[in-house]
Amino acid sequence: MISLRLYLSIEPETRIGPGKVRLLEEVGASGSISAAARTLGMTYRRAWELIHHMNEAFGQPIVTGTTGSLGGAELTDVGREIITRYREIEQQALKAAEPHLAALSGHIVAPSGPNDD
Amino acid sequence: MISLRLYLSIEPETRIGPGKVRLLEEVGASGSISAAARTLGMTYRRAWELIHHMNEAFGQPIVTGTTGSLGGAELTDVGREIITRYREIEQQALKAAEPHLAALSGHIVAPSGPNDD
Repeated sequence: MISLRLYLSIEPETRIGPGKVRLLEEVGASGSISAAARTLGMTYRRAWELIHHMNEAFGQPIVTGTTGSLGGAELTDVGREIITRYREIEQQALKAAEPHLAALSGHIVAPSGPNDD
Repeated sequence: MISLRLYLSIEPETRIGPGKVRLLEEVGASGSISAAARTLGMTYRRAWELIHHMNEAFGQPIVTGTTGSLGGAELTDVGREIITRYREIEQQALKAAEPHLAALSGHIVAPSGPNDD
């Protein structure tokens, strides 16, 4: 099965894809970086770094309240806009890609395993 | 400036994106892995590995004639189809993404450099 993954690439070296968008959505839903990290099975430190990297790439906060771990965190308007626009691009791209992905998936030859007799 | 990058993700761990598609296009154009590698500024070994990985992911050759470095190489029908379908997906996704990318790019705050006074 072939699936499509989309990344927003920000020069020089930031990429916002399915993982970071999911993280932003969880922060928005829970109001907490540590809760979001827990839900996604990553460390608080890793989640904080990903968010910090996005804040740096935009030159303004995408998530606020990221300095201490005690207070809550929330998405800024730009943070919310990233999610909305990414999901809209994804939806339209997936619609366009669907027949192509199905056709290409049909060309994958499964290796014959030991139980294939 | 924010741009869009698309990857075809094949379980368990192959991703075909702009770099590999470009490599396939160059192999098709030159009929040679080493010429394609040279054009793209990568080693022959690296190009061979990327192609080998794609062949493995599909369970059939995407590029043939990859065993020796003396003979030429050419795309199989599936190899050509990957290029065509990737570029079609990309074209439609970019069209849908354009206004979103422009809007998000507008939120990037450029850091003020030492010459900004």
